Amino acid sequence: MSEIFNFCAGPAMLPKAVMEKAQREFINWQSTGSSVMELSHRSSIYMDMAKQAELDLRELMSIPDNYHVLFCHGGGRGQFSAVPLNLLPQGKTADYIISGSWSKAAAIEAQKFGNINTVDITLSGEQTSVLPSKDWQLTPDAAYVHYCPNETVNGIEIFEIPETNGVPLVADMSSTILSHEIDVSKFGLIYAGAQKNIGPSGLTIVIVRDDLVGHEQPATPCIMNYKTSADNDSMYNTPPTYAWYLAGVVFKWLKEQGGVKAIATINQAKADLLYKAIDQSTFYQNNIIDQYRSKMNVPFWLKDETLNYQFLKEAEHAGLTALKGHRIVGGMRASIYNAMPIEGVQALVEFMQQFEERNM
Amino acid sequence: MSEIFNFCAGPAMLPKAVMEKAQREFINWQSTGSSVMELSHRSSIYMDMAKQAELDLRELMSIPDNYHVLFCHGGGRGQFSAVPLNLLPQGKTADYIISGSWSKAAAIEAQKFGNINTVDITLSGEQTSVLPSKDWQLTPDAAYVHYCPNETVNGIEIFEIPETNGVPLVADMSSTILSHEIDVSKFGLIYAGAQKNIGPSGLTIVIVRDDLVGHEQPATPCIMNYKTSADNDSMYNTPPTYAWYLAGVVFKWLKEQGGVKAIATINQAKADLLYKAIDQSTFYQNNIIDQYRSKMNVPFWLKDETLNYQFLKEAEHAGLTALKGHRIVGGMRASIYNAMPIEGVQALVEFMQQFEERNM
Repeated sequence: MSEIFNFCAGPAMLPKAVMEKAQREFINWQSTGSSVMELSHRSSIYMDMAKQAELDLRELMSIPDNYHVLFCHGGGRGQFSAVPLNLLPQGKTADYIISGSWSKAAAIEAQKFGNINTVDITLSGEQTSVLPSKDWQLTPDAAYVHYCPNETVNGIEIFEIPETNGVPLVADMSSTILSHEIDVSKFGLIYAGAQKNIGPSGLTIVIVRDDLVGHEQPATPCIMNYKTSADNDSMYNTPPTYAWYLAGVVFKWLKEQGGVKAIATINQAKADLLYKAIDQSTFYQNNIIDQYRSKMNVPFWLKDETLNYQFLKEAEHAGLTALKGHRIVGGMRASIYNAMPIEGVQALVEFMQQFEERNM
Repeated sequence: MSEIFNFCAGPAMLPKAVMEKAQREFINWQSTGSSVMELSHRSSIYMDMAKQAELDLRELMSIPDNYHVLFCHGGGRGQFSAVPLNLLPQGKTADYIISGSWSKAAAIEAQKFGNINTVDITLSGEQTSVLPSKDWQLTPDAAYVHYCPNETVNGIEIFEIPETNGVPLVADMSSTILSHEIDVSKFGLIYAGAQKNIGPSGLTIVIVRDDLVGHEQPATPCIMNYKTSADNDSMYNTPPTYAWYLAGVVFKWLKEQGGVKAIATINQAKADLLYKAIDQSTFYQNNIIDQYRSKMNVPFWLKDETLNYQFLKEAEHAGLTALKGHRIVGGMRASIYNAMPIEGVQALVEFMQQFEERNM
């Protein structure tokens, strides 16, 4: 069959070389005669792999030594609960910055566990935009500030790291982790569901500064307790072992590509190519202000929405899959995470131009 | 390489035919040109598969229509929290039957979320045994009774289903689900981490009676809320999609073997073979009373424990892996779940006899 480019927002495509390697060693990993998923997480061969995956992630993101890296169950939504359970003591308030669907969902979930102050930064107008972080109205003594740097549904990405004046900054980086360089030391906690830029669903990475660990509420489920996870190298309970392994293969692949800096250059080129094609056309549009346009999730709309179904059908036929926009915003969405090669974006742009010509 | 028989307690071996099928379709599932793990959980092709997996499990276990089947994150330990969060209202008590390490751990975790009454049924003496369920001292108006029918560490299995006189019975069946026929209607809730008899780690199956859903405590994390999961067909958050798929392939395989009744006959034969070899020897021993000997996890001890290391080393060399007993009880443990063919147990018994002859 001809090549498929899968633009799904998540679970998303994984690097082809990663998948081919995983397939080759699927039933006989490291000459064990078993799949990696059939081995004890406490066997030395598995633990060596798991540790190496952590070291590779630390290297890729330059994670300082005073941060734990946890490999957790439960996805991003699990962290919507775990963050307040671990970081929000009674009597304190946490600020939640609302920039789209996911940051809003995080705030709603957090309200179960303590006092939450929501700060809506979305701006209406002809173009969608958000308030610059210097203008956010934050609680001075908040337990933490939570935000979502990249909103996958809305296609809004906040590139500047907010200044929170000593209040721990918590970021849901599910859709932007490893896509460009960041200074981890500016954050108290970073979490990311794996199924966009890391690996398969079912694994969540938590990067948390030492001093924020060990203050959990009494009714914190053990699988959400950062201290328990940190003290047990994420193996207090059986971790999602296969997802952890695949994440490790992705980290190795990313190192081979030249690391985060190198992939960021490619990601920039991919985003430029796609936004340019949208902006130069009178047939497609994206109404997000330049400064906050996501490099990972590019929503776009056909000006004539009656063509949506035809667009999707023909795109699928051309091997360009999962381009349907999220039901909340409609239209189209191209998710172009690290694993999407530039050839995929080129193929999409060519298809868009041809579709436009046929339907002008 | 020659055949490997992997006796790991979990993550455990999966059926060879399942793994070979999964390998073949790893990067091109159902002609999508993608791996199943790269597809949206909301795509129709994925949802059809997910639904079929549920239907196959319902058929295999004869699950009545008034039970939900949930595909959850978080492993068995996640359910240690989720069960009291969903089933234990303030002011009520839950009974926890203690028969070994796992039921004890469940009780300790549950104490975070409400009043827990522990009922220790272990009996000391020359042989390890437990109190028959008719003699358990239960709280008459308990919110539920929790027990673990098969203790993987201790090798104790309770085959009779306890009579709880209308109090919902909750069972951690992580290591015994699908190994023999049970009457689901006798239970309020059954849960099972997948990594023993179902699939890879990271997936947990919850089978819960309708009337027990919807009474969760206010501070229940959304990923642990049974009602949220039930209302959204286990897709409120992105489920562990690849583990769900593999579970589905295991369910199909089990149907091809003739279902649970047929596999139970094989499991009985495997257990009989191994216990007989232990009992007929003066070199090995298992001190659990016949009636409660686990058919899934068979611990045994060399009478001369100085030979433990040599036994494990030679077993490994013979392709019999992961036989080391749990650190709490020492000795050896052979986990012989559904996926272990009888040839594996035959090979183990032969090795044990030869090792005994060499070291008498």
